[in-house]
Amino acid sequence: MTDETGNTARNHLRAYINRIERLEEEKSALMEDIREVYAEAKGTGFDPKIMRQVIIIRKMEPDKRQEQEYVLDTYLSALGMLLQPSTVLEGAGVAGEDVAVAE
Amino acid sequence: MTDETGNTARNHLRAYINRIERLEEEKSALMEDIREVYAEAKGTGFDPKIMRQVIIIRKMEPDKRQEQEYVLDTYLSALGMLLQPSTVLEGAGVAGEDVAVAE
Repeated sequence: MTDETGNTARNHLRAYINRIERLEEEKSALMEDIREVYAEAKGTGFDPKIMRQVIIIRKMEPDKRQEQEYVLDTYLSALGMLLQPSTVLEGAGVAGEDVAVAE
Repeated sequence: MTDETGNTARNHLRAYINRIERLEEEKSALMEDIREVYAEAKGTGFDPKIMRQVIIIRKMEPDKRQEQEYVLDTYLSALGMLLQPSTVLEGAGVAGEDVAVAE
């Protein structure tokens, strides 16, 4: 490697590192903003943990969501951990029957 | 809860969720940008894994970094895993200066 190409490579590397660091800084700033919104919401009486669940649920396809809830209900039911079984099972549709089958 | 306060709470919640979702989108876009820089650097011949290490090292306090390298060397040495022990240890010392100069 000549000095010339060494310098060019060094400059390219430095430029890449700098670009990444700037983007990482912007990302950190955004993450701080997000934390602040959650904190503000908490101050108004909303539960940040539930809000995070809402955000996740809103990102999911309805089919995917239904499938996951169904599987979760099945597992909870298998472990005797379902809250108000009849209500939850009605909500999940035919989950009740299938849970028995799944066992 | 009256209808009025229920509506207000609902609107507040909706506003918080929307703000978070917009910020999360910006964060995702930034993360995509970061991935692209790494991909571009890789295309020029740089190793993204090593670049990620560089980013981490540049974030560390020099003292902290020296301490960690020292402990790592100690562990590797204890396990008979040091590569060219004398060179590595010398390299660790000199590297500190280079970083300071590069800034």
